Amino acid sequence: MSTAGQVIKCKAAVAWGPAKPLSIEEVEVAPPKKGEVRVKILATGVCHTDAYTLSGKDPEGEWWPTIFGHEGGGIVESIGEDVTSVQPGDHVIPLYIPECRECKFCKSGKTNLCSLVRSTQGRGVMPDETTRFTCKGQKVYHYMGCSTFSQYTVLLEISVAKINPKAPLDKVCLLGCGITTGYGAATKTANIQPGSTVAVFGCGGVGLSVIQGAASRKASRIFAIDTIPKKFEFAKKLGATDCINPNDFDKPIQQVLVEMTDGGFDYTFDCTGNTNVMRAALESCHKGWGESIIIGVAGAGEEISTRPFQLLTGRAWKGSAFGGVKGRSELPNLVEDYLDKKLEVDMFITQQYKLEDINKAFDNIHSGER
Amino acid sequence: MSTAGQVIKCKAAVAWGPAKPLSIEEVEVAPPKKGEVRVKILATGVCHTDAYTLSGKDPEGEWWPTIFGHEGGGIVESIGEDVTSVQPGDHVIPLYIPECRECKFCKSGKTNLCSLVRSTQGRGVMPDETTRFTCKGQKVYHYMGCSTFSQYTVLLEISVAKINPKAPLDKVCLLGCGITTGYGAATKTANIQPGSTVAVFGCGGVGLSVIQGAASRKASRIFAIDTIPKKFEFAKKLGATDCINPNDFDKPIQQVLVEMTDGGFDYTFDCTGNTNVMRAALESCHKGWGESIIIGVAGAGEEISTRPFQLLTGRAWKGSAFGGVKGRSELPNLVEDYLDKKLEVDMFITQQYKLEDINKAFDNIHSGER
Repeated sequence: MSTAGQVIKCKAAVAWGPAKPLSIEEVEVAPPKKGEVRVKILATGVCHTDAYTLSGKDPEGEWWPTIFGHEGGGIVESIGEDVTSVQPGDHVIPLYIPECRECKFCKSGKTNLCSLVRSTQGRGVMPDETTRFTCKGQKVYHYMGCSTFSQYTVLLEISVAKINPKAPLDKVCLLGCGITTGYGAATKTANIQPGSTVAVFGCGGVGLSVIQGAASRKASRIFAIDTIPKKFEFAKKLGATDCINPNDFDKPIQQVLVEMTDGGFDYTFDCTGNTNVMRAALESCHKGWGESIIIGVAGAGEEISTRPFQLLTGRAWKGSAFGGVKGRSELPNLVEDYLDKKLEVDMFITQQYKLEDINKAFDNIHSGER
Repeated sequence: MSTAGQVIKCKAAVAWGPAKPLSIEEVEVAPPKKGEVRVKILATGVCHTDAYTLSGKDPEGEWWPTIFGHEGGGIVESIGEDVTSVQPGDHVIPLYIPECRECKFCKSGKTNLCSLVRSTQGRGVMPDETTRFTCKGQKVYHYMGCSTFSQYTVLLEISVAKINPKAPLDKVCLLGCGITTGYGAATKTANIQPGSTVAVFGCGGVGLSVIQGAASRKASRIFAIDTIPKKFEFAKKLGATDCINPNDFDKPIQQVLVEMTDGGFDYTFDCTGNTNVMRAALESCHKGWGESIIIGVAGAGEEISTRPFQLLTGRAWKGSAFGGVKGRSELPNLVEDYLDKKLEVDMFITQQYKLEDINKAFDNIHSGER
């Protein structure tokens, strides 16, 4: 019996307020409106950004109760009016950066930062200012336009990437955030050239994905930098040539690295969100041409700083969101790369949990375990 | 009678110590050694960088006595052993960034920051650790590899650009620093594309040259930003479409500009050396693709800062030295552009002084007069 047009009751992990454990609740998910799709979520990752907003420290995330989650994979259950690019049954990855193909950002050819629905998405509502979730008679907010911690969610048509249905959703859901963010930063934002030298600060999922991207571009040296040495095992498997623990040195790590590499790196990446590390990454760049890409998200109000001489002498400081990847146009290609065994994803999955155990996943994130 | 091989006695403006007026002295200029040329200086500009180092605040400029000046034009008087690219009689512009064509920077194809003699040049000596100037029996240091405040100076062969002798040296000497720095930042470092929008912070000689470069690239809007409105007259002549005095607004200037331009600029340039202005310039860039180029030199130890979100959302922070221009290879082309009336130089010359009156020129720099 079709559920199209009906309210669906299902389970979701609801965040009732800052810094509280998520609560598994029965929620009602309204049918998709014009330009929207309802998706049955089969798998989702848990990301530091979820944890950050849940902590209550994110000044732009004060909308409660909320259903978090933005790294998912699912199957379209039904579509609203005017939806043409996906059909029920299509496999999709939700996109926290949509791709409308009509705003000046999409049409610029220079960025993936579609801004069509930025204002409403940032306030946890759909473009009509309402939400599709209800729990115990109360309105529940969306999160990053995705809300994948629910068995069903409603997304904008412009916020889903249709992918090859052969791809296992419990694997490629990670392409909805972490892996794409790192891999794209290396291959799109930095556009690493063969033979170049690369330093990656922070070897979590994003940093490891940068390493993988640098290796795919045939970088000659790839330095993995982390204070937790056990992460180096994965870094090496993905292509790191040198592993450095800053705690092993007395001098500032940028000075150590510049000396080790006769002047610094062609490309460096911050995957930590720590503003001191962002500075170290910039200052580890080679004079004349080194580029440093910020990927990590810093705490609210924190600032980066350096001496302008660093830039005057030819370094460039940039950033990357979702790896510069346009979700609907380009993400499906990464799924194909995975199916063609050109892109490693399976290694990034170290634990799997049932929805009921989602708080254990958050505990693991906080402990720094993979 | 040839002076080649002889010590030449001539006049120079000697700086005996920090923050003292320059003193016109008779100096001895030794003949050029291997790889060096001796040049009769016919004209020189006076630059803020000279004034800054003279002030004693430049931690890298503590070499006294010194002969300042780095924006000159002259004629080769004699050449040392192994010099092949210039002959006596050639017209040249001294280069404070040399071009050896052999170091990894020159060969990279990515930067003009030749570093072959950086260490000795920074310490006011020639590569053999000695100087060619003597005054009253005392060794006098070189400055930025140029020392154009002398009737004769000795330069490395790699530190002179041979130019068309038809060009008046009392005009094109300005291509030795300010004009090239601004014009090149616009046309080379930023590589401004036709139809784009540009903001230039600071409308001294460098900023006006950025405006000229942006106009030559057919930028659609060029904002000139300065707190001294009378500079806008020249800015408009060179192509500025909008002139803004930040003191006319209560809000931070970046907020004003972003609102005026529906999101900010494609390119912004700091030509002030003020680190707060550098931040405003970055934050006036358009999300997704805006690039901000730092040209001004900040005071010793000063730092730039911003929220990393500015970069994560697609802005890039860069710098430019000598406009990214390779002196020997590319500066002669700018001289040709001047002769072909494609590049305005004459307008930048507001005052001319005899060497004896050089302290008046410094007084004028400090007063902010043009």
